Amino acid sequence: MTRVAVFGPGSWGTTFAMILAEAGNEVTLWGRRPEQMEAIERTHENADYLPGIPLPPTLRATTDPERALDGADFVVLCVPSQTLRANLAAWREHIPRGAVLVSLMKGIELGTTKRMSEVIREVAEVPEERVAVVSGPNLAKEIAQRQPAATVVACADESVAEKLQAICHLPPWFRPYTNPDVVGVELGGAVKNVIALAVGVSAGMGMGDNVSAMLITRGLAEMQRLGAALGADPHTFAGLAGMGDLVATCNSPLSRNRTFGENLGRGMTLAEVVAATRQTAEGVKSCESVLALARKHDVEMPITEVVVGVVHDGMSPAEAGMLLMSRSPKPERYGV
Amino acid sequence: MTRVAVFGPGSWGTTFAMILAEAGNEVTLWGRRPEQMEAIERTHENADYLPGIPLPPTLRATTDPERALDGADFVVLCVPSQTLRANLAAWREHIPRGAVLVSLMKGIELGTTKRMSEVIREVAEVPEERVAVVSGPNLAKEIAQRQPAATVVACADESVAEKLQAICHLPPWFRPYTNPDVVGVELGGAVKNVIALAVGVSAGMGMGDNVSAMLITRGLAEMQRLGAALGADPHTFAGLAGMGDLVATCNSPLSRNRTFGENLGRGMTLAEVVAATRQTAEGVKSCESVLALARKHDVEMPITEVVVGVVHDGMSPAEAGMLLMSRSPKPERYGV
Repeated sequence: MTRVAVFGPGSWGTTFAMILAEAGNEVTLWGRRPEQMEAIERTHENADYLPGIPLPPTLRATTDPERALDGADFVVLCVPSQTLRANLAAWREHIPRGAVLVSLMKGIELGTTKRMSEVIREVAEVPEERVAVVSGPNLAKEIAQRQPAATVVACADESVAEKLQAICHLPPWFRPYTNPDVVGVELGGAVKNVIALAVGVSAGMGMGDNVSAMLITRGLAEMQRLGAALGADPHTFAGLAGMGDLVATCNSPLSRNRTFGENLGRGMTLAEVVAATRQTAEGVKSCESVLALARKHDVEMPITEVVVGVVHDGMSPAEAGMLLMSRSPKPERYGV
Repeated sequence: MTRVAVFGPGSWGTTFAMILAEAGNEVTLWGRRPEQMEAIERTHENADYLPGIPLPPTLRATTDPERALDGADFVVLCVPSQTLRANLAAWREHIPRGAVLVSLMKGIELGTTKRMSEVIREVAEVPEERVAVVSGPNLAKEIAQRQPAATVVACADESVAEKLQAICHLPPWFRPYTNPDVVGVELGGAVKNVIALAVGVSAGMGMGDNVSAMLITRGLAEMQRLGAALGADPHTFAGLAGMGDLVATCNSPLSRNRTFGENLGRGMTLAEVVAATRQTAEGVKSCESVLALARKHDVEMPITEVVVGVVHDGMSPAEAGMLLMSRSPKPERYGV
């Protein structure tokens, strides 16, 4: 039997732990708060993040990282991106030799502009063959409600990707596809939040489906150009972790990034939108690190540029639209 | 000054004629009904298809194909797909030597399974360098209301594509990109209606954004596999005429295909849905010709298969979902 430790009892970490447990693995969920972990052990429910969803009774929960990691073949990490480095450093000594580390996180580390798998390799001192990434159009709430979903499992070592695919495959509910392109899968998850902000702004301005589709498609083109510069496969962005996740995020009323953009597009000032937003919209931070990456590699990302302008530099949404629509005529594909 | 004849005074033909006229070309719109053409000449409004939208006074309208074609550098065709062959045969003798024929049509000819550009080359006896295609996320109503939009202009001869791009470029309103891949651009427009049916069925069943995104993305993967077999460039499908048009169609409440699928997903019988549908949903016909093309070229198109099953062979939506989600695990990219 395969043993899996899942770190991070938020809605996606818990949902993924549930899938793994139902697929027949021995799964332990780790969290910091004793009352939450005890409640999961006792009631088989994560009332904070997935109220009303019954968790499999075989799913264990603990606050002890050593216990969670004991004999683990896979270590799944789903903590806030900016806390990964410090958390992982504390757990490192208990990670079994040979275990595969799996990132469910979508973010770029501020300051270093490193992807999550890069932080994992650096902190845990593991080779790339032992780091995998899971990403796709996976709104946790819908999956927890037993709606079907597909995802991508990426690892430089295809046999490791196939093992991970096998342990989380749960037909007809959850369908993972393998992909060897870790860089592309991670970039897709990071850039999509920036494009979701842009789609939100246009919706807030009253624009319709042509404009959304244009922003999503040309947003994908700039993801592909950035990816090409960083060694990703452009095809990855046309897949579930690229356009799939982008489409789900841009359409979902649950997306904080889209909502943040909508409020800006409706004419609220940045200060008003920030005041109205309870949780941080990830793209508000990451648009700057994405643009920094693009400039470092001399990649044109016009939508990201105007998102940074609108969100941080006082550019008006109308001005942003005018700038994008007044660029010189281009072939559809360049820089890839 | 460039002269353009536009055949087909529906909402998209009229909107594209309006763009061309405002961009400074001499444009004549052809239509069969004298009262409609006279009204456009006199009132500068196409009350049947674009009520309330003022057309440029320079736009001419006529029922005489010879007059429309006199001195035309570009001949834009926007008639119902299945009538193209007969219509074009009647106009052929008046088409000036050297004119470029431009298709705005999205369809596959029934029986022959030919794309519109293939029908044009055959009937008008012109080489591929003189046939272009315009396709993208272009809901006519939104463009007519002056919302921005982007599109793709495809021609095997890039200099011809650039000329067409130049005459319909109207910043900041309408932004065309060039692409040399005519086959890919046309297939995108034909297959998207089939996928929109699938997305409609899932929405009708109460499924959320993960399932839509999965169907859109894996639908794109099957477009790419079919395209690869027919000589298209897989990248085209990640562009405006592929995923762009697909996303706009799947999201738009105006899409007949999506609505048709939704009714099936809600549990209406096929007969009930057909009775409730005023105009034909294009995908209902074309799913069969797309599947015929796929089988001829030995291409796997599982979503198209279940769409044909649900729409024509009495398969239940639940059974279709189960079939798709129970396929053997796969790498994300195969057959491309």
